[in-house]
Amino acid sequence: MIDYDKIAQQVMARCDELGNISQSDTCLDRRYLTAEHKQANQLVGEWMVQAGMTSWQDEAGNLRGSLESKTPNAPRFLMGSHLDTVPNGGKYDGMLGVLTPISLIQAFKEQSIDLPFHLDLVGFGDEEGTRFRSTLLGSRALTGQWPKEWAEVTDSDGICLKDAMAAFGLDFDKVQNAAIHQDALMGYLELHIEQGPVLENENLPVGVVSAIAGAKRFDLTVTGMAGHAGTVPMPLRQDALCAVSEMILAVEKVAQEHKIVATVGQINNRPNGVNVISGETNFSLDIRSEFDDKRDAGLAQILSDIQAIAERRNVTLDIKQTHAADAVHCDKKLQSALCRAIQKAGYEPLTLPSGAGHDAMAIADICPVAMLFMRCDKGISHHPAEAINAEDVSASLVVLDHTLQSLI
Amino acid sequence: MIDYDKIAQQVMARCDELGNISQSDTCLDRRYLTAEHKQANQLVGEWMVQAGMTSWQDEAGNLRGSLESKTPNAPRFLMGSHLDTVPNGGKYDGMLGVLTPISLIQAFKEQSIDLPFHLDLVGFGDEEGTRFRSTLLGSRALTGQWPKEWAEVTDSDGICLKDAMAAFGLDFDKVQNAAIHQDALMGYLELHIEQGPVLENENLPVGVVSAIAGAKRFDLTVTGMAGHAGTVPMPLRQDALCAVSEMILAVEKVAQEHKIVATVGQINNRPNGVNVISGETNFSLDIRSEFDDKRDAGLAQILSDIQAIAERRNVTLDIKQTHAADAVHCDKKLQSALCRAIQKAGYEPLTLPSGAGHDAMAIADICPVAMLFMRCDKGISHHPAEAINAEDVSASLVVLDHTLQSLI
Repeated sequence: MIDYDKIAQQVMARCDELGNISQSDTCLDRRYLTAEHKQANQLVGEWMVQAGMTSWQDEAGNLRGSLESKTPNAPRFLMGSHLDTVPNGGKYDGMLGVLTPISLIQAFKEQSIDLPFHLDLVGFGDEEGTRFRSTLLGSRALTGQWPKEWAEVTDSDGICLKDAMAAFGLDFDKVQNAAIHQDALMGYLELHIEQGPVLENENLPVGVVSAIAGAKRFDLTVTGMAGHAGTVPMPLRQDALCAVSEMILAVEKVAQEHKIVATVGQINNRPNGVNVISGETNFSLDIRSEFDDKRDAGLAQILSDIQAIAERRNVTLDIKQTHAADAVHCDKKLQSALCRAIQKAGYEPLTLPSGAGHDAMAIADICPVAMLFMRCDKGISHHPAEAINAEDVSASLVVLDHTLQSLI
Repeated sequence: MIDYDKIAQQVMARCDELGNISQSDTCLDRRYLTAEHKQANQLVGEWMVQAGMTSWQDEAGNLRGSLESKTPNAPRFLMGSHLDTVPNGGKYDGMLGVLTPISLIQAFKEQSIDLPFHLDLVGFGDEEGTRFRSTLLGSRALTGQWPKEWAEVTDSDGICLKDAMAAFGLDFDKVQNAAIHQDALMGYLELHIEQGPVLENENLPVGVVSAIAGAKRFDLTVTGMAGHAGTVPMPLRQDALCAVSEMILAVEKVAQEHKIVATVGQINNRPNGVNVISGETNFSLDIRSEFDDKRDAGLAQILSDIQAIAERRNVTLDIKQTHAADAVHCDKKLQSALCRAIQKAGYEPLTLPSGAGHDAMAIADICPVAMLFMRCDKGISHHPAEAINAEDVSASLVVLDHTLQSLI
C-alpha cells in the first residue's frame, strides 16, 4: 500500500526546499538559463535518480527523467510541468507538477510497481517567458518548434538567447536534439495548481481541465478632448475616461452574458491631473474562452458595443490586436481516465477550463494532453502568498496513481 | 475717438513679446520669483510708464501701477490679473488681463480722458501656485493674508519661500507692506480668458462672470481582489477597476442631473497588468458649482451612489477630502455695469460662472469684485495651443472702456 499522506509531506518539504533557490534575496525569482535554473535542475535531478529514474538535462536546459518499463516494446507516457517562476512568484506554480510525480514514482519503486509503459517526466526550463518574453520555450523545444530567429531574441540586459544558452553550457544550434521521440507517445499529463478560485469555491481538492482557453488581447486608445475641470460644462465635454469607463462596464456585461472571461487589467490616462478632464485614455482587453467561437462571439459584441459608445460620446477609438491564440482541448479519453480516478478516490469529478496558459498547450501539437488541477488558497498565484495544503497533494497523488495504473 | 482695433493689435503684439520670456527653451514656463518673473515685471512696468502710470514692484514681487485722477479725494478702483504661467502654458491666461488695461489707459492718456477715480493695476506675481503649490500668493499679499508659516514652504528644489524672496531681492518679513489700502477702494475688475467653451459655443466675444465656483476635491481608493485574468470566472471577481468605472459614470450622471461640474481627472490602477484583474484603483474627484448648496447636494448624491456601488460589488472604498473652498459671488452692481457696457457695445450680455479659480477670489475679501471673460479658441488653456483673436480683444476694450467710464 502506498502511503499517500507520507508522500505528500515529502512533496511539500521539497517544494519548500526548491522554493529557496532564487536569484533574488527578497523573493522567489528563478528565470531561464540562470545559475539558479542550473541549481534547480541539479537538485530535482538528484530526486529523480533517488526515485529510480534516469535523469539528464536536454539541449534546451529542460530537466528530463525517465522510468523505463520492463514490458517489451512498451509505449511511452509523458508527464511534467515547469521549474521556472515569475519574479516575486510562488513555490507551487509549475514545481508541484514535477515534484509530485517524482515522489509517486519513488513509491512505485519502493512498492515494486512496474508500469506497462515508459514514464517520462520533464521539468521545463521556461514556461513563464519572464526572461525572453516569449513563453513556453521549454515545451516548444520538446516539440521541435524553435525557429532560428529565436537565437537573437534578447532579455532586458540585452543578452540574446544564443549567448545565454552558451553561458549556461548549451548550444542553440543543437536545440533540435531536445525534441522528444513521438513514436508510441501515448499522451501527456500535467498536474498544476488551479490559479483560480473555482475548486476552492466547490470545496474540491482536484478537477479535470476540459480545455486551455485561447486568448485574444487588444490595446485600445480613446481620444477625447482635455479641458479644465472647472470651466467645461458637462454637456460640452468629450471626456476620454468617462467613455472608457462605459466601455469597461460593457466588457464586463458581455463577458457575463456570454459566459466567457474578459478583463480590462491595464489603464493609462492622460494628462491624469486632478483638475483636468481626461483627453486620452489607453486600456487593455484580454478575452478568453475554452471555446474559440464563444470567445469570438463575445468579442464581436464587445467591439460593436464600444464602437457605439465612442460614436455616441464623440470620441475616437483606436484598436490594435496584440495577441491571438486558439483554445487547446484536452483529450477526451485522458479526461475520462482522470474523472474515473477522481471518482474512485471519492471525489466529485468536476471538469473546468483553464484560463491560464500551460506547457500542455505546446505539447498538444505532438500528442493527446490532459491536465489535473489542484486547489490553491484563494486562487492566488504568481505571488508569495501562493499556498496549497498537504491533504490536496495527497488527493492528487491518489488520482495520479489511479490514472497511471488505468492507462493501459 | 479711441481706435479699439489698433489698441487690440498692440495688446496682441505685447502678449507675443511677453510670452517669449520663459525659463524653458521649449515652452512657456514662468514661475514666481524667478529671473524671468523679474524680466516680465520690468517689461510690463515700462509699458505702464509709457501709458502714463506710475509703476513699482511691491514687497511680494507683484508689479503695481497707478493712474492718478485729477479729482480731489477720488476713490480708488483696482484692476489686474497675473503674470505667472503654468509649465507648458499659454500666453493669454493672466497676461491678457494686465496688458489690455495698460493699452486702454495709454489711450486715455492720448485722448486726455481723466477718470473720476484713481485706477490701480496689478500684475500678480503668483496665481497658478506652480512653484510653491499654494495658489494666489500674489493677490493674498495684496489683501494682507500671508501667514508666517509660508516662510518655510518649499519648491520642488527644496528652496523655501523666504529664501526665494531674498534671492529675488525681497524680504519675507516686509510682505505686509504689499497690502493695498482699503480706504475708498470701490472694487476690483479682472479681464481673463474664459478657459472654457461657453462663449465660443454662444458665439459671443465676452461674458460677465456671476460667481467663481467653490471646489471640493477628494482622493478615493477602491480595493478589490487582484487575480489572473484567465482563471477567475466573472461572478467570483472583485474587480476594483470595474467598480471605479461604475463610480465614474455615477459622478458624470449626478453632475449632469444637478447641473454642476464634477470630474474624475486622475486614475491609477494596480497592478495594472494586461492579464491581471485590478486589485486596487485610486481616483480623484473634483466637484464645483457657483452655488455651494447645489455642489454639496450633488456631492451627497455622488457619495451615496458610490458607497452603494462599493457595497454591491463587495469592494472597500476609502475617501479622503483634500480641498474645500466656497464659491465667491461677483458684485451685483459691477455685474450690471459690465452687462450695460456689453449691451452698449452691441452684444448680448451673457452671464456665466467661472469654474476655474482667479485672483478675484482673494481680492473679494477686501472689496466688491467682478470679472469679464473673453472667448478663447476651443476653450483651451494651460497649453501652448491657447489662442484668442484681436477682434475679441477689441470688443473687450470697448466693454472695459464703457464700464470704467460708467462707474461713477
